[in-house]
Amino acid sequence: MSNVPLIALLTDFGAADGYPGVMKGVILGIAPGIPLVDLTHEIPPQDVRAAAWVLHTSWRSFPGGSVFLCVVDPGVGSARHPLAFHAGRHTFVGPDNGLFSYVLADQTNIRAVILDNPRYFPKGASATFHGRDIFAPAAAWLATGVAIEELGSALAAESLVRFAPPQPLWERDTLVAHCTHIDRFGNILTDVCGAEAQAVFAAPSVSLTIAGHTITARARTFAEGPEGALFLYQDSSGYLAIARRNGSAAVTLALPSPDIFKMTLRLSGIAFPG
Amino acid sequence: MSNVPLIALLTDFGAADGYPGVMKGVILGIAPGIPLVDLTHEIPPQDVRAAAWVLHTSWRSFPGGSVFLCVVDPGVGSARHPLAFHAGRHTFVGPDNGLFSYVLADQTNIRAVILDNPRYFPKGASATFHGRDIFAPAAAWLATGVAIEELGSALAAESLVRFAPPQPLWERDTLVAHCTHIDRFGNILTDVCGAEAQAVFAAPSVSLTIAGHTITARARTFAEGPEGALFLYQDSSGYLAIARRNGSAAVTLALPSPDIFKMTLRLSGIAFPG
Amino acid sequence: MSNVPLIALLTDFGAADGYPGVMKGVILGIAPGIPLVDLTHEIPPQDVRAAAWVLHTSWRSFPGGSVFLCVVDPGVGSARHPLAFHAGRHTFVGPDNGLFSYVLADQTNIRAVILDNPRYFPKGASATFHGRDIFAPAAAWLATGVAIEELGSALAAESLVRFAPPQPLWERDTLVAHCTHIDRFGNILTDVCGAEAQAVFAAPSVSLTIAGHTITARARTFAEGPEGALFLYQDSSGYLAIARRNGSAAVTLALPSPDIFKMTLRLSGIAFPG
Repeated sequence: MSNVPLIALLTDFGAADGYPGVMKGVILGIAPGIPLVDLTHEIPPQDVRAAAWVLHTSWRSFPGGSVFLCVVDPGVGSARHPLAFHAGRHTFVGPDNGLFSYVLADQTNIRAVILDNPRYFPKGASATFHGRDIFAPAAAWLATGVAIEELGSALAAESLVRFAPPQPLWERDTLVAHCTHIDRFGNILTDVCGAEAQAVFAAPSVSLTIAGHTITARARTFAEGPEGALFLYQDSSGYLAIARRNGSAAVTLALPSPDIFKMTLRLSGIAFPG
Repeated sequence: MSNVPLIALLTDFGAADGYPGVMKGVILGIAPGIPLVDLTHEIPPQDVRAAAWVLHTSWRSFPGGSVFLCVVDPGVGSARHPLAFHAGRHTFVGPDNGLFSYVLADQTNIRAVILDNPRYFPKGASATFHGRDIFAPAAAWLATGVAIEELGSALAAESLVRFAPPQPLWERDTLVAHCTHIDRFGNILTDVCGAEAQAVFAAPSVSLTIAGHTITARARTFAEGPEGALFLYQDSSGYLAIARRNGSAAVTLALPSPDIFKMTLRLSGIAFPG
Repeated sequence: MSNVPLIALLTDFGAADGYPGVMKGVILGIAPGIPLVDLTHEIPPQDVRAAAWVLHTSWRSFPGGSVFLCVVDPGVGSARHPLAFHAGRHTFVGPDNGLFSYVLADQTNIRAVILDNPRYFPKGASATFHGRDIFAPAAAWLATGVAIEELGSALAAESLVRFAPPQPLWERDTLVAHCTHIDRFGNILTDVCGAEAQAVFAAPSVSLTIAGHTITARARTFAEGPEGALFLYQDSSGYLAIARRNGSAAVTLALPSPDIFKMTLRLSGIAFPG
C-alpha cells in the first residue's frame, strides 16, 4: 500500500476562536489541496495526558503517510523543543512535552529532529502560537515530501520527554487499574488491556470496585448490557471499559473528570500473578 | 450534472474523543483524497430520531454521488443490520434502526444491502465501533465506485426499520402539530409543511398555542418579526417554525429539550379539513 | 506565489444542526473538490462584532486565492445587501452588516458587488437561510474563477456598512483600552497594538487596572508568566493581552462575557501622548 499524504490535527484550541482554521490556512498555503482531518480540538486546556491518550487510541487507524499535527503546548515559547519524528510510516509534529508518550512506548525506529533549521523557521515566530508559526508549517512541508532531516537537528529518541503510561498492577490476587479516559457517552476506559483484559471476559466471575460501586456484569456489546446497571466491556481500542446501556457510567458513578484514579479488579478462577 | 463523490458524516460521537477523526483516517486509507463533510457529530447520544431529522433537512442540498455515513447506533454489535442503500443518486450507510425513516418515506427506488460480504468485512470487527470497522470502510468503497451489490446481500426496501415521521393531525378546525427539532438559535421547528404551512401564512389570522403561550404574529424573515415577541415563520427546510427575533423561542417557552410534544394551531378563514 | 483556491467558513451556526454541512454540500455541488476550512461556527448567535474580530485575527494567515464565506446574519432576508468583495488577493462573501469592518479598515483597493445577478441567484431563495441559498453558491462560483463582476452590481467601497473598530484612547498619561475578545483559554485580548503594545513591554514599569484588579507583571511566554497571578503578554495577533499561567484570566477576573469593556493602562517612563 502506498503512502497517503494527509495531516490530522489534535489540539486544545477549541472551536470558537478560529485557531485551528488559522493553522489550516497556513498549511494550505504551503501544501495546497492536502487533506486535513480534525482528530479533536477539544482536549481540556493544557492537558497533555488527555491529548496523549486520544492520539494513542486513534493514530493506528490512519494510513501510512499521515502526519499528526499535535498542539497541546503549555510551554510554548519556552525551552521545550519543537519536534518532528517518524515512527514507521507515520509522522508526528508537536512540542516535546510528553504528548507522544504512548506512541514512543509502542514504537521503535524513531527518527526525531528539533524544528530549528532557520531556512524553514526564520526568526519572527510568535512567542505564544507555535501551532501557527512552527508546527503547522513543519507538518505541511513534511506532507509535501521535505525530508525530516531538512527541518532541523537530529535528536536521540531516548531523550524525548515522556511520562510512563499508566499500567494496572497486581496486589496479590487483585488487579489495581486506573481510569485513563471518559468519553462523550460516559464510558470509562481503564488501562487494562491485552491478556489481562481477555482474562476479565474469560474468568468464571469478576468484580470491579470503583468509587464505592461494585460491578460484576460483563457484555460484548452495549445492547447486551443489563438494563439500568453498570457493566464491563472491551472497548474498540482494546481496553477494559465500564458502560451503562443507553446511559452514562460516569454520571452513574458521579466521576467528576477523567483524572486518573484507581479501581480494583478481582478475577475468580484465573491464576495470573505470582 | 455528473456525480460528485464525497462523504458526509453524521454521528453522535461529539468532538472530544477523536472518533469522527478515526473514521476519516479509515476512509482516506481506502479512498485517498475523497472530500469529507461533517454534517454533525453533536446528535444527542443514542437519539436516532434527532439524527433522522437532521439528515432529512440536509441531504437534498448535497450533489448526486454523495455518500451519507450515519452512525447513531445504540444497537451496535447486536442483530440490527449494518446497511447501505441507494436512493436516486444519493447513497446512505449506517445501522438499520430508523435513522433513515424520513429518507425512506420520501424516496422510491431504494436499492439496499446488508453489509455482510466477508471479502469486504472480514471477521475481527470490534463489537462496539462499527463506525470505524464497518460503516466507514463501506462508505469509502462506495465512494470509490465499488458497486453496492458487492458489499453484501440484497435487502427488500420494505423490510428496512423505520418509524412513522410525525405528522400534524386535524381535530375539527384545529391542527395538532408537533415539535420536531430545536436548533442552536432556539428556533422551534414543527411538522407542519406543504399546503398546510402555506395556509398558515395565507389565512387572515392564525393562532398557535404551545406550552401555555399563544402566538399570532407571523413574519417572512427574522428581521420582520416583532421585537420581543414570538412569531411564526416558514423555515428554510419548508416547515412552520417559531422564532424570537434576536432571541431564543425555546428559552422564552422554557422548552427543555427537542422531544416531540404537541401544539395546537387554529387558522381562521381556511376551510381545510372535512 | 500563485493563488490557492479554498473556502474558509465563519458562522454562528453551531455544530449541532447541520447548517454548515448543508452549505458545504451546496459548495461541492458547484466546485467539486474545493478545499474547505472551518474557521469557526461558534460565534455567539447574531454577534456580528465577535465574528468581525475572529475574521480580523485570522484571514491574513490564509493564502491568496482564499474565499471567506462569513454568515452571521441577523438581517437575513431584509434589505441588507448580500455582498462579495476582493481585498487584495483575498475574497470575502457575506451580509453587508459590519462583519467586515476590520478588513475594510485595513485594506484599500476594495472591489465590491451586491449578489443580485438573477442568472446566478434566481428567485426562490429562502427568506432565512441565505448561507445556503446565496452566500455558499457565491463563494463556490468565485472559487471556481467566476469574475466577481458577474455576480452582481458594483457597490462603492465607501458605502459598505462598518463599525469603527475599538481603539485605545489617551486620557492624560493613561491609556484607556478595551477588551475585544476572550478566548477558550480565558486569555483577554485588548485593542492595544502596534507602538503602544511595544511600549507596554519597553516601559520600566506598567500597571493595568481592570475589573478592580491591578496587573503589573509582564511575560513573553505563558511559561514565563508568574505562577498564580495575572500578567500581560503580546498575543500572536499583535495585541496586548492578559493571561494566567495554566489558568483562565477571565475566570480570575470574573468577566462574564467578551463584551467590550474598559481598562486603564499606565506606563511609566514612556512619553507617548502630547
